[in-house]
Amino acid sequence: MKIAVIGATGYGGVELLRFLQHHPYAEVHSIHSSSQDGISLSEIYPHIGQNEAMILESIDVEQITATADVVFLATPPGVSSQLTPLLMDGGVKVIDLSGDFRIKDGRIYEAWYKKTAAPNRYLQKAVYGLAEWNKKEIEDAVMIANPGCYPTATLLGLAPLVQNDLIKEDSIIIDAKSGVSGAGRHVSLSTHFSETNENVKIYKVNEHQHIPEIEQMLWNWNEQIKPITFSTHLIPMTRGIMATIYSQAKKELSTEMLVDLYKTSYEDSKFVRICEPGNYPSTKEVYGSNYCDIGVAYDERTGRITVVSVIDNLVKGAAGQAIQNLNIMMGIEEDTGLQFMPIYP
Amino acid sequence: MKIAVIGATGYGGVELLRFLQHHPYAEVHSIHSSSQDGISLSEIYPHIGQNEAMILESIDVEQITATADVVFLATPPGVSSQLTPLLMDGGVKVIDLSGDFRIKDGRIYEAWYKKTAAPNRYLQKAVYGLAEWNKKEIEDAVMIANPGCYPTATLLGLAPLVQNDLIKEDSIIIDAKSGVSGAGRHVSLSTHFSETNENVKIYKVNEHQHIPEIEQMLWNWNEQIKPITFSTHLIPMTRGIMATIYSQAKKELSTEMLVDLYKTSYEDSKFVRICEPGNYPSTKEVYGSNYCDIGVAYDERTGRITVVSVIDNLVKGAAGQAIQNLNIMMGIEEDTGLQFMPIYP
Amino acid sequence: MKIAVIGATGYGGVELLRFLQHHPYAEVHSIHSSSQDGISLSEIYPHIGQNEAMILESIDVEQITATADVVFLATPPGVSSQLTPLLMDGGVKVIDLSGDFRIKDGRIYEAWYKKTAAPNRYLQKAVYGLAEWNKKEIEDAVMIANPGCYPTATLLGLAPLVQNDLIKEDSIIIDAKSGVSGAGRHVSLSTHFSETNENVKIYKVNEHQHIPEIEQMLWNWNEQIKPITFSTHLIPMTRGIMATIYSQAKKELSTEMLVDLYKTSYEDSKFVRICEPGNYPSTKEVYGSNYCDIGVAYDERTGRITVVSVIDNLVKGAAGQAIQNLNIMMGIEEDTGLQFMPIYP
Amino acid sequence: MKIAVIGATGYGGVELLRFLQHHPYAEVHSIHSSSQDGISLSEIYPHIGQNEAMILESIDVEQITATADVVFLATPPGVSSQLTPLLMDGGVKVIDLSGDFRIKDGRIYEAWYKKTAAPNRYLQKAVYGLAEWNKKEIEDAVMIANPGCYPTATLLGLAPLVQNDLIKEDSIIIDAKSGVSGAGRHVSLSTHFSETNENVKIYKVNEHQHIPEIEQMLWNWNEQIKPITFSTHLIPMTRGIMATIYSQAKKELSTEMLVDLYKTSYEDSKFVRICEPGNYPSTKEVYGSNYCDIGVAYDERTGRITVVSVIDNLVKGAAGQAIQNLNIMMGIEEDTGLQFMPIYP
Repeated sequence: MKIAVIGATGYGGVELLRFLQHHPYAEVHSIHSSSQDGISLSEIYPHIGQNEAMILESIDVEQITATADVVFLATPPGVSSQLTPLLMDGGVKVIDLSGDFRIKDGRIYEAWYKKTAAPNRYLQKAVYGLAEWNKKEIEDAVMIANPGCYPTATLLGLAPLVQNDLIKEDSIIIDAKSGVSGAGRHVSLSTHFSETNENVKIYKVNEHQHIPEIEQMLWNWNEQIKPITFSTHLIPMTRGIMATIYSQAKKELSTEMLVDLYKTSYEDSKFVRICEPGNYPSTKEVYGSNYCDIGVAYDERTGRITVVSVIDNLVKGAAGQAIQNLNIMMGIEEDTGLQFMPIYP
Repeated sequence: MKIAVIGATGYGGVELLRFLQHHPYAEVHSIHSSSQDGISLSEIYPHIGQNEAMILESIDVEQITATADVVFLATPPGVSSQLTPLLMDGGVKVIDLSGDFRIKDGRIYEAWYKKTAAPNRYLQKAVYGLAEWNKKEIEDAVMIANPGCYPTATLLGLAPLVQNDLIKEDSIIIDAKSGVSGAGRHVSLSTHFSETNENVKIYKVNEHQHIPEIEQMLWNWNEQIKPITFSTHLIPMTRGIMATIYSQAKKELSTEMLVDLYKTSYEDSKFVRICEPGNYPSTKEVYGSNYCDIGVAYDERTGRITVVSVIDNLVKGAAGQAIQNLNIMMGIEEDTGLQFMPIYP
Repeated sequence: MKIAVIGATGYGGVELLRFLQHHPYAEVHSIHSSSQDGISLSEIYPHIGQNEAMILESIDVEQITATADVVFLATPPGVSSQLTPLLMDGGVKVIDLSGDFRIKDGRIYEAWYKKTAAPNRYLQKAVYGLAEWNKKEIEDAVMIANPGCYPTATLLGLAPLVQNDLIKEDSIIIDAKSGVSGAGRHVSLSTHFSETNENVKIYKVNEHQHIPEIEQMLWNWNEQIKPITFSTHLIPMTRGIMATIYSQAKKELSTEMLVDLYKTSYEDSKFVRICEPGNYPSTKEVYGSNYCDIGVAYDERTGRITVVSVIDNLVKGAAGQAIQNLNIMMGIEEDTGLQFMPIYP
Repeated sequence: MKIAVIGATGYGGVELLRFLQHHPYAEVHSIHSSSQDGISLSEIYPHIGQNEAMILESIDVEQITATADVVFLATPPGVSSQLTPLLMDGGVKVIDLSGDFRIKDGRIYEAWYKKTAAPNRYLQKAVYGLAEWNKKEIEDAVMIANPGCYPTATLLGLAPLVQNDLIKEDSIIIDAKSGVSGAGRHVSLSTHFSETNENVKIYKVNEHQHIPEIEQMLWNWNEQIKPITFSTHLIPMTRGIMATIYSQAKKELSTEMLVDLYKTSYEDSKFVRICEPGNYPSTKEVYGSNYCDIGVAYDERTGRITVVSVIDNLVKGAAGQAIQNLNIMMGIEEDTGLQFMPIYP
């Protein structure tokens, strides 16, 4: 199938190209950027090497819908809400890596993103691409809202607890830590090396736009869930997210019971790996891969459950999950083009 | 006054020497190590430069008590519990940077540290050196148990809430992040560069020995406090601790009210700085200094309070607070030898 | 073909497994370690995940030669010199990632490595696996000495100049910078995070064992070459080598002429990429890949040539080049199993 | 004496304030910025804390000359060349941390800096503030051109060899490595964390504006010196410069002879420390301090000398040396306000 990538000059876009380059069934037909028409991508990213196919084109919707089967959007918030309706009307399938189609209620989107929401009838067609839990809908989708990096780590970590009604509904606290690549390639003081190295910063306290995305999915699973606390920290590393998730158990449990539950919940999931009791994942052990590794502990002293969930924010948290969604939507093996070990060390 | 430093070859020890070198009233009379008698410290730490006074001596208690006024112990757990009684019997004052004298109940110490506790009568003479809150007792102390790095950041962050009974007693969760120097100079795979760089790891889940130290002080302030959840993460940086502290407010509050409370609580504290509403500290802004910077937020959606407390783990979390305690104990200005700006960037 | 990997628990070994896992013609039949018989590799390296095939076995030469077609040795210096003769006598092909078979003159090996050299008749059968320049001999080899990381970056950078007699024979100075993973997984103070982070160190000044390896190959190309100066620096990053190579031109040149020469020299080399005039590679642009990127400049003020050559030390500098050698030796496409983009950022 | 700091919002400016805060004889009377009049510096740099004296003022030359005794300029290139003449005419002493007054020949400045040179009569009054070698002139100076970071490390490393005519005049090659703070606080893709972390980059090959500054001083010492090769690399750390300096000895020497020469050359220099034979400095061992540590080796195989010189680029390479120059110019002890240990680790 023929693929177009819009927003190919960002970190998400270039990571998509890394995976698509050797995908057996997908061919990158064109790459697009709003501002760099005619430039070879290798001028911007020398690591991809000279490659004649990698010339950036402007975003001409008609031309794209005439030639592509599937379009990936790796654009900043506020762009996809305008482009996607045109692409959908043109008959191509869309996988959007931005947040524009993740939240069903446009007013909530607008409150957290401070941007105009996408038109409602397109919004309602979007399927939330949390591949491990929405597979059925993804198979039938024409438009996929690829989940955010933090929500992916968080939701995969919480799903077994929330779906099985094991935790108090008002007790969820997520303390998330992210590498700096999550902030993208746009330069700013907050991602300037000398300000970021040897430093941990907390940001968007109680205001992160991923909060409503996480809550929406939790409510889908269990409508008793109350608002969550979700904090994000910038860590002096490039890739990786760890979500440390706290909640209060409704009844006495044990770490072993929880590990069993998680193993069962994810037994058919190729990309979720559960740690043995007493073991917890570190971000580096999923570096460059599409895995989500999860460890879980029950504390008898407090009756609290701690879940530790790690992903590579640019892979399972963005481009990798997008390819996984492509595979599911196209009816091919879910891990096609994604079967490789993390890079370690 | 004449100072002896035992355990001068660790990171805590060498940081003590950095501060003592230009302390106007303290003179480093001798430095001691269990294994490197006769070696110049500059062979181990070239950064201190040739310095004839810095020759390591063995640990001869009689000689030390005969010449020193105050002894700092910067030794691993289990050493001070044996040395300190001899030093106290010899009539010198002791400031212990290890955990051996922090916990009043020897059985609790033994349960968490898996080592034999110090003799009880010495344990009871130890004053917990949380300088901002125990000043009166520190003034009269002959033996100071210098607080742990994590407890310092955590307790300074929680004190105003717990002392003023503002939070639900069973709702405290601390998610702490530390630079690698907190693990000391002893080599191990978990502090090997290639395993630690570009990586976030959680460790000692529900088992960290600083848990009882924190709980003991919280109970001193408010005996209704229930067991806490306290998690520790290793961050790819050398120095710095951030404690992100979550708790449930008993009644509706506001961020402004909380900031005011914190400012009032610490108005006489030279080393605690409170951020304005909407601002939060990052670890780098206290690098190399004795400051503890604190930000606080109230979330109306959840009724939860988030406190963000940062210190340099080797300064306010170890050697700096030890000097601060020395100053208080000796009746001199608390910030003597500690008045310098953080190093930035 | 069936592969055995000896020394699978080091960084070079585990990187070999990453590449072999999806190699279409090679199957990892067994993995071996001198000390961890029966352990699953995933206990040591959680990133590889549960994998029943990855159980470590002891090093039983008879068993290995009975079942394997090719054996990779990723062992410390001094091990391969003893194992390889037994394996060769057993009829298997050997690719050795250590330095034991790289230097033809055993006395030189012993002078620089301070270890006993391998027996001479085996040493003489070894082919130096610098794939871009020794392809013919590699095709016919039964034993390949895989080049060191520094020599790979250096020799690929110098080959066009030395082979074409463009530089003064006594003018070569190589200033090399390496990530810490080059020091392996063995813990030591010099690779302890707190000592290595925010630090550049020079080490083994004028004494690095890669000096004779580089000189031997330069002499093969041009026997007038005089002893080189070669310095190595440890950089606070995990992966990557940059060799900055200085030499004096014999006659006036230009950057454009040099870039043309390099492009011509490497036009058939899939893994060597030459930068356009005025551009120079950075280590990150080859991260995780088998590429060697090279930039070159001529300075009219001094008549000096600067060559900048970068590789991923664990890939083109170790495991990747070993797979490349395997492919050549086996008569299959040189880039089989190695066709992937660098990971960026 | 009363100090004004112009350009206080850059890294050099804020580092000056760190040192001046506790300088016993200097008082920061005013701080100035071209664009942030009225802002408290603590809003820009929370690490300095609330400090009423630290309000930025606009750059009003008349007001400054009316109140200040000495003005520090920590401004980008091209600013000082215009401000300094006005300040000098106003009767204040000036210490300029930029490159505008370092090069005596305005045409050379303009060729390398691509900016208009300062007026010649002011240029000729400027004293190059390489404190260890120009002390006499600094004592009498009214205007000091504070040396660049790279030139400081390089010139202190080369002085004994060049002054004593020990090396071939056309053989000097300097391979320099710098932390990212040397690029200042201005954001750019080349200092963006995700592009800089886990990366070594070479930049300005054969074009760095510090080349003529180094050559000018070398020629002052020995007019036979030929053009040098000088390369600069960006290292994933915040602070520190290492200059690895290569040259060809004119006659056979030994490492011991060289170490003796360096010790003698710097025996009266408080801030230059020479390593024992076989030892070399790392950048971290001068972190935050005004030291320059130097190691030197002679290689019998090649007849080459390797000098390794390290500084903290923001201290000895900028603000620290500026304070040292202030002290010398004011006739007070050279190390006033600068006597502190490096921060380690």
